[in-house]
Amino acid sequence: MSLEPARKHLVRLSDWPQEDLDRVLALSRTLRQEARPGALASKSIGLLFFRRSLRTRASFEVAIGKLGGQPVNLTGMSDLWELEDREGSIMDGRAPEHIQDAAAVLSSYVDALAIRPAPAGRTWDIDRKDETIKSWARHARVPVINMESALWHPLQALADLLTLEEELGKLQGKKLSIVWVHSPMAASASVVHSLLLSALRKGMHVSLAHPPSYALDPGVLDEARQRAEESGASLQTFNKLEDAIDDAQVVYARSWMSLESYGNPTLDASHRSRLTDWKMTEKLLARGSECKLMHAMPVRRNVEVTDEVLDGPRSLLYRQAENRLHSQKALLVDLLGS
Amino acid sequence: MSLEPARKHLVRLSDWPQEDLDRVLALSRTLRQEARPGALASKSIGLLFFRRSLRTRASFEVAIGKLGGQPVNLTGMSDLWELEDREGSIMDGRAPEHIQDAAAVLSSYVDALAIRPAPAGRTWDIDRKDETIKSWARHARVPVINMESALWHPLQALADLLTLEEELGKLQGKKLSIVWVHSPMAASASVVHSLLLSALRKGMHVSLAHPPSYALDPGVLDEARQRAEESGASLQTFNKLEDAIDDAQVVYARSWMSLESYGNPTLDASHRSRLTDWKMTEKLLARGSECKLMHAMPVRRNVEVTDEVLDGPRSLLYRQAENRLHSQKALLVDLLGS
Amino acid sequence: MSLEPARKHLVRLSDWPQEDLDRVLALSRTLRQEARPGALASKSIGLLFFRRSLRTRASFEVAIGKLGGQPVNLTGMSDLWELEDREGSIMDGRAPEHIQDAAAVLSSYVDALAIRPAPAGRTWDIDRKDETIKSWARHARVPVINMESALWHPLQALADLLTLEEELGKLQGKKLSIVWVHSPMAASASVVHSLLLSALRKGMHVSLAHPPSYALDPGVLDEARQRAEESGASLQTFNKLEDAIDDAQVVYARSWMSLESYGNPTLDASHRSRLTDWKMTEKLLARGSECKLMHAMPVRRNVEVTDEVLDGPRSLLYRQAENRLHSQKALLVDLLGS
Repeated sequence: MSLEPARKHLVRLSDWPQEDLDRVLALSRTLRQEARPGALASKSIGLLFFRRSLRTRASFEVAIGKLGGQPVNLTGMSDLWELEDREGSIMDGRAPEHIQDAAAVLSSYVDALAIRPAPAGRTWDIDRKDETIKSWARHARVPVINMESALWHPLQALADLLTLEEELGKLQGKKLSIVWVHSPMAASASVVHSLLLSALRKGMHVSLAHPPSYALDPGVLDEARQRAEESGASLQTFNKLEDAIDDAQVVYARSWMSLESYGNPTLDASHRSRLTDWKMTEKLLARGSECKLMHAMPVRRNVEVTDEVLDGPRSLLYRQAENRLHSQKALLVDLLGS
Repeated sequence: MSLEPARKHLVRLSDWPQEDLDRVLALSRTLRQEARPGALASKSIGLLFFRRSLRTRASFEVAIGKLGGQPVNLTGMSDLWELEDREGSIMDGRAPEHIQDAAAVLSSYVDALAIRPAPAGRTWDIDRKDETIKSWARHARVPVINMESALWHPLQALADLLTLEEELGKLQGKKLSIVWVHSPMAASASVVHSLLLSALRKGMHVSLAHPPSYALDPGVLDEARQRAEESGASLQTFNKLEDAIDDAQVVYARSWMSLESYGNPTLDASHRSRLTDWKMTEKLLARGSECKLMHAMPVRRNVEVTDEVLDGPRSLLYRQAENRLHSQKALLVDLLGS
Repeated sequence: MSLEPARKHLVRLSDWPQEDLDRVLALSRTLRQEARPGALASKSIGLLFFRRSLRTRASFEVAIGKLGGQPVNLTGMSDLWELEDREGSIMDGRAPEHIQDAAAVLSSYVDALAIRPAPAGRTWDIDRKDETIKSWARHARVPVINMESALWHPLQALADLLTLEEELGKLQGKKLSIVWVHSPMAASASVVHSLLLSALRKGMHVSLAHPPSYALDPGVLDEARQRAEESGASLQTFNKLEDAIDDAQVVYARSWMSLESYGNPTLDASHRSRLTDWKMTEKLLARGSECKLMHAMPVRRNVEVTDEVLDGPRSLLYRQAENRLHSQKALLVDLLGS
């Protein structure tokens, strides 16, 4: 199989032409119904987790297993050592191995590499470059799948698009609200970045709400505005929850980190502690238009979202999570299937 | 497959009707001889370990593999985060996810969930409620298998019953002695609780021996006495090793923790250090009736039991451990097999 | 299948007759081209890692998967506890279980046990006895494969022999140079020990270069000289890099630990810091005879070896690493295949 270089990896959804994404989404719907037990026969897929994972690890392993392939787990906490990602560096520091070499060697063992890197977490200027996942993609001779980097979470966005289309049909012109919610611990904004660009590319009108110090990365916002322009969609930003939710058909909640206190968890915790009223309640969601709630999970009950909402008919959370399985099966079949 | 609610999970053996247990025990004997490589074809089983495991993990993974299923491992130490088990709680503490949500999501990926929770270990009054495994069973939409909670270890008891029946034939009226032995580190009493109730239900006469401060949980003892009454069995307690072993056909040794010093390991270690003569020796076991020794392992050689006993003809330990494999295959086929 | 006792395990390559090794090497070449998806059908292989691993774990799991077997991972850091290896010991210390018992139990679950023990790292006199892997081999009832002990790394040596023969054809009379290189962190000498004896047994002329305080284990050197005598090969030692490389056809680089500062990492680091010019460069390797470079990895770029060499035509590193896969498939088929 000879893949185009731009097609080979899945580092971010925007790297893929829309027709390729649509083909994977269509296949996801098929594979929800249809078993393909031999699609990955004799294929092995390396799963490298440098951070903890419940949904991604379980859904990916099961996806591979259902297709007859072999998942090969390598876990940063028990199997791996630190890996260098800078080209040409004199490696006299902590990392005993370069990604260039790990990627080359693993490429001779497995048919694809799915990676969840651990951003250093010190400064956003460094982490936003996403050097680790880019280094894997540069050096691997097999497809590299990003299982969530500092900047992007394409697998979550794929499942989110599938869920949105199942719920709303054609997405063009529909209204999505992406809102910051309170949590004592910050989550990555990668999920929001990937969804934002994907939804705008599909022509959805997106309203974004967050407290003033929780603005998204300026580079991502620039790209978002450009996507909106290309697709005829709109992007509006609010600093009040209520305004963003009015008329929304779907609200997507996430407690992303503030770039102002990035790398300073104490300061971040102190900011967050004053924002406990950024919470999804039945009353708030009633402002939308038969409004459903999405969330990438894990979700803190009665902090980010009330039990009433999570256990009621508005919640799409379990559907979203299940769609991780089907969309990842489709992605694997598309990349590697015979 | 539609299971009865009471049948669906295996949280404790007592939840199962005796005829179901007997069917699984009979199937265990069959599967010791007979391979069923396709019995779990296209089935995935999630294995969640919040504590370390050698025998349970290895025997469960192999059992699944031999039946053609896929084990999906999630390990608390490297993959998972703390999970909340209290209903309705405001989740602003350490746990970022509720078991309700983890169970729902994993139920959409796998066909059964086997769980080894980690009791908090602070007070027995809390741990004895076994809320974690109950919460999994309450919220999962697939069978939940308890791989050892604070209170119960049904998989070990299943293998123990199989071993006892292989050794003694019909168990009614046979004599089992369950004895506390010394170890510098306490083990859980779950193994003893599950065996005690199972053996009494089968009509075995059980004698229990432990130092005065190592009495078992009063609730478990109450239930044990009730079982004994129902089956015509007897339960006697001794504070001297020798008395309990007289005429026993099988001695089962375990160094369970004292409820008096639960949550206080320093105090516990100091109590234990004075009990080094609670040890299984050839001389002691000679008091029984062609007496065999059982132990759930890991076993501290020459502290809990002498090398002479462990390496001699009395030891059933390896048989017991091997029976974990066969009884777990049988359980899986019974719950999920096609 | 009934294996001879001396044949059953792979603790060190020297335990195997040369014809058995040659058969495995020949099969390795076959299995590079030829798939054998059913060779390990219904076989499970336990992989026990008490130290981190990237290449060994990934290549072994994939090897087993490609042959239709089931790898069962047990990781010291998250699954296992400390295991006792002294016979007859009174186990009142940290280890709650004896290798004798773990080996017996696991032998009833799996068809082979591959082990990477963690040497204690305090004194070389103790670690050089390799008691842990010997204890596993003594007590297991299934083949035990050493995945790198303090003294030996037979799987790496097997892949290295395969690589050398692919590169040089018949090895008799060819010249191999084994050289110490600088690294801020010491690696185990096990790779060098196994290669040294294997190459001499094959009749290669070996020159060894290291700084004065980095002499290899005297027992290994004695055995090496004896091998050289038997096969008509030669072994020369140098304290200058250049001298050892003259006319070499292959240079093998490794930053092994000094036995003089074994167990004292601070002292070791201070010695090492003065040896930064022990580095493989294009200029140095040009002294050889169309000289290629081998290294067992992980390799510290521009510290042990320059980028120019690693990314140029002299490097056999990726070939070596890929050969781990093929030689391990061959070993498994030879030991267990049907």
